[in-house]
Amino acid sequence: MDEPELEKIIAFLDLGTNSVRLLVVRLNTNYSYTILTQQKEQIRLGEGGFTDGLLTPEAVERTVNICGKLVSLARGFGATDIIGVATSATRDARNRGMFLQRLFDEADIEVKVISGEEEARLIYLGVAGGIELTDRRALFIDIGGGSTEVSVGDARNCYLLKSHKLGAIRLKNLFFPNGADSPVEPERYAEICTYIGDTMDHTIQKVKKEQIDLSIGSSGTIENLQQIAHNLYHRDEKRQVMPILLLKDLKRLTSTLCLLPLAERRHLPGINPERADIIIAGAAILETIMEEMGIQEIQVSDQSLGNGLLADYLSNIPGFPDAEESSVRRRSVTQLGRACQIDEIHAETVTRLALALFDSAKKTGLHTFGASERELLDYAAFLHDVGNFISFSGHHNHSRYIISHAPLPGFDRHEIAIIANICRYHRKKIPKNHDNVMQDLDPMAKSIVKVLSTLLRIAEHLDRSHLGLVKKAVFTPADKYTIQLEITCRGDCSLERWAVEADTKAFSKVFRRDILVSVTSTED
Amino acid sequence: MDEPELEKIIAFLDLGTNSVRLLVVRLNTNYSYTILTQQKEQIRLGEGGFTDGLLTPEAVERTVNICGKLVSLARGFGATDIIGVATSATRDARNRGMFLQRLFDEADIEVKVISGEEEARLIYLGVAGGIELTDRRALFIDIGGGSTEVSVGDARNCYLLKSHKLGAIRLKNLFFPNGADSPVEPERYAEICTYIGDTMDHTIQKVKKEQIDLSIGSSGTIENLQQIAHNLYHRDEKRQVMPILLLKDLKRLTSTLCLLPLAERRHLPGINPERADIIIAGAAILETIMEEMGIQEIQVSDQSLGNGLLADYLSNIPGFPDAEESSVRRRSVTQLGRACQIDEIHAETVTRLALALFDSAKKTGLHTFGASERELLDYAAFLHDVGNFISFSGHHNHSRYIISHAPLPGFDRHEIAIIANICRYHRKKIPKNHDNVMQDLDPMAKSIVKVLSTLLRIAEHLDRSHLGLVKKAVFTPADKYTIQLEITCRGDCSLERWAVEADTKAFSKVFRRDILVSVTSTED
Repeated sequence: MDEPELEKIIAFLDLGTNSVRLLVVRLNTNYSYTILTQQKEQIRLGEGGFTDGLLTPEAVERTVNICGKLVSLARGFGATDIIGVATSATRDARNRGMFLQRLFDEADIEVKVISGEEEARLIYLGVAGGIELTDRRALFIDIGGGSTEVSVGDARNCYLLKSHKLGAIRLKNLFFPNGADSPVEPERYAEICTYIGDTMDHTIQKVKKEQIDLSIGSSGTIENLQQIAHNLYHRDEKRQVMPILLLKDLKRLTSTLCLLPLAERRHLPGINPERADIIIAGAAILETIMEEMGIQEIQVSDQSLGNGLLADYLSNIPGFPDAEESSVRRRSVTQLGRACQIDEIHAETVTRLALALFDSAKKTGLHTFGASERELLDYAAFLHDVGNFISFSGHHNHSRYIISHAPLPGFDRHEIAIIANICRYHRKKIPKNHDNVMQDLDPMAKSIVKVLSTLLRIAEHLDRSHLGLVKKAVFTPADKYTIQLEITCRGDCSLERWAVEADTKAFSKVFRRDILVSVTSTED
Repeated sequence: MDEPELEKIIAFLDLGTNSVRLLVVRLNTNYSYTILTQQKEQIRLGEGGFTDGLLTPEAVERTVNICGKLVSLARGFGATDIIGVATSATRDARNRGMFLQRLFDEADIEVKVISGEEEARLIYLGVAGGIELTDRRALFIDIGGGSTEVSVGDARNCYLLKSHKLGAIRLKNLFFPNGADSPVEPERYAEICTYIGDTMDHTIQKVKKEQIDLSIGSSGTIENLQQIAHNLYHRDEKRQVMPILLLKDLKRLTSTLCLLPLAERRHLPGINPERADIIIAGAAILETIMEEMGIQEIQVSDQSLGNGLLADYLSNIPGFPDAEESSVRRRSVTQLGRACQIDEIHAETVTRLALALFDSAKKTGLHTFGASERELLDYAAFLHDVGNFISFSGHHNHSRYIISHAPLPGFDRHEIAIIANICRYHRKKIPKNHDNVMQDLDPMAKSIVKVLSTLLRIAEHLDRSHLGLVKKAVFTPADKYTIQLEITCRGDCSLERWAVEADTKAFSKVFRRDILVSVTSTED
């Protein structure tokens, strides 16, 4: 691929068997991106087509028409490139040549048909890009309208990519060719599961030999099954960023689904009514996989092939951080900071100093936190100024809002709340347990926020001039009531010293010690 | 002035008699700006100096030292130009040459001493840039440490610029040369007022002949007097964006201030303790002006000479909107939209369509709102997407947050709340009276939000493609229950029609009518 110039607007169109998704993204000159719009439309391209291997004229008509609209939407947003891929329904259709030609002629888009393995790879890229795996090895399951993709991978690589001709629409066409209006007999359901198990047998055996630390499901089918199970069985629990679906709940749910005729199924709490006719087939695929592979629970991700297309695209542009060089979390944080046009050099200086203070404060006995809190401080230090572009005054509050509401793949809500509040308290008010913004935090989290925000506050003062003058900053005990902060700096850092000394209240309150600053100046 | 390249970082340093203020601003390539940092330090440059016309060695030392720190702060933020101006204390000092040379040699800054009239003009620019005056003519009063500036102007021009050798520090030096530690006798206070009245007599007579619609006070002295009066006499009232100070409250306050020795004055609720020694002198200036000019109340602005320096600078850069071509409100809205990198062409299209819908809906009897609501819709339509860069999902909520928290000079809190909520409801959820975000609004404001957000929602759909295809959009009554929306467009606007027709619920709920779309397509 040629190196694209930035700033550039790119659209990604994912033409699935059940729906088509459009994602329009602006690539910014500072190697961040902004999602300009996204849209999903149900097209049922695979409706009726899998049994005879032909896309029906109605489905083609419908899809070409909607794709045309999405393409002009993308062009209207200024997209210069539109990357279109088609999956199972198109892949398996004997009349796909005609279909692709009509998309080209009438919808003005060149769509590439991708293989099942490529589909599995892109899903892996999209889903793994939304969760911090580090060294854990995960199983990825995605149930589309026409195919089911399974892969195994960790943060950097995937080791197995499988695609199967099993999908919610495909199985509905196969097992309920006259519609899925009636309840489904247990025997019939068992037949479907057997068919699925047979089709996937080879993959199931392979996966069972792998060491898997966690399983992650994606796709509209799995998201909707989780949503219904949540509404039926766990209504009072808070929904998580990455919600969980338990095999035992799925089993209860499939029994219920099978008992209901279509008209009643549509009214189950949480169900997407447009999926009510294909949800049993989709549930059977997931239940069989979990049952056969011995998986008791899966995490459910809202990432999809479209996110994989974007990740794949970005990984080819030098300058955008990718999985080779940095973790999902690090990429999330870098992306957000850049989208808010922070001063990155200052952010990196403050991060370096905050972490040095963390380590030194720990040695001095000022706190007993470990690697996980250190990591949160790392991200908070990088993000502390993201709120500045809203307004300088109160920017610490705006940073808190932005961090709380921006997409930060790889973090859970609890971690995001801590990072947001550390940034809230990097200046001005000293954190107190009864503050409004602290109300969602448990006592341990409150105490993390107090200690880490105080260290961040000092680190921020230590780069008051934004010149990166302070090389080292070390705490040493002076006496029972006093901690000495020894600063080593290049040239004159009187501004930094002045800033620290003008704002020692937070330190005294949180650590119950006075702080005494000493400066050693070096020449280089 | 040469045309500066963008993006460029500029610092403004305002070296006053009581304090020095630094403002560091990044000028963005899209003709918006971002405040990177600001800092204010008390220097008391004029301390002890006005009686013998010499800056004291201690004051010079202190000021050169602090200015040096502020200059390196500005450089650290990347400022390439630093625009420094000095006012009364420097202007009136016989040893100013030495002082300016020391600033140049030791603090690395070339400071320009400005005349009293230029000071009054810059204050006018700064303060008038923070309030929507339109055709109203205002009196501006600013009480510094060494001089008091008075001017008269409207949104575009000022007609009178006066500077007087009266200031809070200057009068303290003159009337309390041994410190202002004791209570002040009524007779002594009256003497001060007489002195002030005599000094300003010429200006007072001139201003009394002018037609003045409102009076606006700025400066630390006036802000602090308003704050104390608020805390003492109006504690339970909400503080306004532009708070009010009444002459009758000021008179009560000066009596109280005179009764207290310095040590007790320092503890008045709301007082800035660093000003406690000079606040009586400052209060006397304001009371005399208000009394003599017959002013019963002033609005208090937090804008200052520094804002005037920025406004003056920007007015010389082609591309930045200035007072000649647009109102304070329009400039605020343009600045915020650009700072958030909105798609301005789309924003302008949606604004045009929203206003057309407003007018046509009014003719059709769908609402009875007038020019002031139309104006709020205008701004909301321009700003509706400002939240998008935080994340596309939920961007309507983010727009509401940003509009509620960004500085928007020229608007009061009530107007900002309405604009923010119109943007909140431009997509997704339909506004309901009991929604959380609506709780701060009175019933009339809620009804404005409902109607205007519904019109904005349709306008947004009418530019779904961002291609500006819709030329005209007119409501006409079809029957008792139905309103027809007649769209005239260039080429194919099926995407726009599709978007309107897919989201008619808000319209039916708010206007209790169905909506029927008809399209006429033209060629050009």
